[in-house]
Amino acid sequence: MSSHKQTIILTEKEEMTKGKMIAQACHASLKAYKKADKEKTSKWEKQGQKKVILNAGDHKLEEIHQQAKRNNLSTSLIRDAGRTQLKPGTKTAVGIGPDEEQKIDNITGQLGLIK
Amino acid sequence: MSSHKQTIILTEKEEMTKGKMIAQACHASLKAYKKADKEKTSKWEKQGQKKVILNAGDHKLEEIHQQAKRNNLSTSLIRDAGRTQLKPGTKTAVGIGPDEEQKIDNITGQLGLIK
Repeated sequence: MSSHKQTIILTEKEEMTKGKMIAQACHASLKAYKKADKEKTSKWEKQGQKKVILNAGDHKLEEIHQQAKRNNLSTSLIRDAGRTQLKPGTKTAVGIGPDEEQKIDNITGQLGLIK
Repeated sequence: MSSHKQTIILTEKEEMTKGKMIAQACHASLKAYKKADKEKTSKWEKQGQKKVILNAGDHKLEEIHQQAKRNNLSTSLIRDAGRTQLKPGTKTAVGIGPDEEQKIDNITGQLGLIK
């Protein structure tokens, strides 16, 4: 059985606290999870629900999201409501999967981990 | 209609990277979500899926989880498999809800936000 994972891609912003960033990641994770194919989700759960957290760096979240869509991967793009630290509509996170590792790596392979 | 939220409680540890911490939070969020009452979950979704990220001291995660259980709140306690940065079984995160804000605040009211 091929390995499955979920990947969350974030952009670190000076004006965003760590707590805020974590909340955005959780939004992305849950939204992509809900959209995902149930068979893939079930495999992923049996395999330990691997989650990988990446840094989008200069790459655009919107671009990654669209690329995941074109590849028929479950994907979520999170925009902040802008009530606290960010401007309304600021893109903060993308969630992809659960899906096969290789399919996700084809899109996010060049991104580094959040340290 | 009363306000609903989901709260994630984390322990910051020196040996844990920010990415690792985010992954633990996503585990806790998803696990508590899946256990939650569907009617409450649906209200929470309509209200914008508020998530609050709090900081707990080292020994409090288990205590908070048990207290949430006793109060019949959906709750998850995450233990790390210990393959990378932490000792196996280290408690890293608790998720509570979605549920009514007041019920969650009764348990987590004294904890501060993750900055």
